Amino acid sequence: MTDQAKNHWEDFQLDRTVTFGHYEVTKDEIIAFASEFDPQPFHLDEEAARATPFGGLVASGWHSCAIFMRMIYDGVLANAASLGAPGLAQCRWLKPVRPGDRLSGRYTCIEKRVSQSMPNVGIVEAFYECLNQDGTVVLDWRVTQFFRCREAPHAS
Amino acid sequence: MTDQAKNHWEDFQLDRTVTFGHYEVTKDEIIAFASEFDPQPFHLDEEAARATPFGGLVASGWHSCAIFMRMIYDGVLANAASLGAPGLAQCRWLKPVRPGDRLSGRYTCIEKRVSQSMPNVGIVEAFYECLNQDGTVVLDWRVTQFFRCREAPHAS
Repeated sequence: MTDQAKNHWEDFQLDRTVTFGHYEVTKDEIIAFASEFDPQPFHLDEEAARATPFGGLVASGWHSCAIFMRMIYDGVLANAASLGAPGLAQCRWLKPVRPGDRLSGRYTCIEKRVSQSMPNVGIVEAFYECLNQDGTVVLDWRVTQFFRCREAPHAS
Repeated sequence: MTDQAKNHWEDFQLDRTVTFGHYEVTKDEIIAFASEFDPQPFHLDEEAARATPFGGLVASGWHSCAIFMRMIYDGVLANAASLGAPGLAQCRWLKPVRPGDRLSGRYTCIEKRVSQSMPNVGIVEAFYECLNQDGTVVLDWRVTQFFRCREAPHAS
């Protein structure tokens, strides 16, 4: 895909909700991620997890974020002139993500502006939600994203 | 370590800053994480990354978060009666994390309260910062954490 064919800042419509992605979470990847990055018992060991308030193995919240990032890459960013993200104003792990969960995503662009300091860069404030197979939101983000502008917004 | 020997909610002191951890980031792990979770060119391909505003390969923000989580586990949570975290009110990727960076961490407990809905659970609002070898903060979080209370706070 040529760069011009990708979505630029102008192509993200305010207040439009877009759905994307599907991903099935496995027990093995929950344990593998936890072993490397977050070896708390409720992420690592099925039997130990049963004795915790989670009542069973749950994905590390950071694993859920990483999976959701991949879903966003495949569903949104691979087709966009993305310039990265400086951060989030909210990240909530609302419900546990468990082995076998089938995840999907949606986002709404809630604010748009052009950068005052970076030429040809547009800023999108977006609300992203990750849902499980029951339609329950398990994770949400309010994230700031940078995209290239199709046309220099300050050009006369 | 017995559970009682671990830090409980009562042991986290308000306004005290605690330093912890050290971690050296490698190019190989940046590429491996990005390949799985965030395959944007500036996280994946050294040559392509040079043509982006980053000017070279940088870790996915979610990789930085996962690495920092592991540093927090090793430095704080492995020795604590942790009950997980419901989310963050702030996550900022302030500076790029690059191959060879040597990271360390610090946190300050900025608010404490007992849960009104979960028995024997205490809540800590903490400000975590991840620094590189120059002492520059590359990542910060404002995160809510749950810890078991040593004594039931509502007991008479």
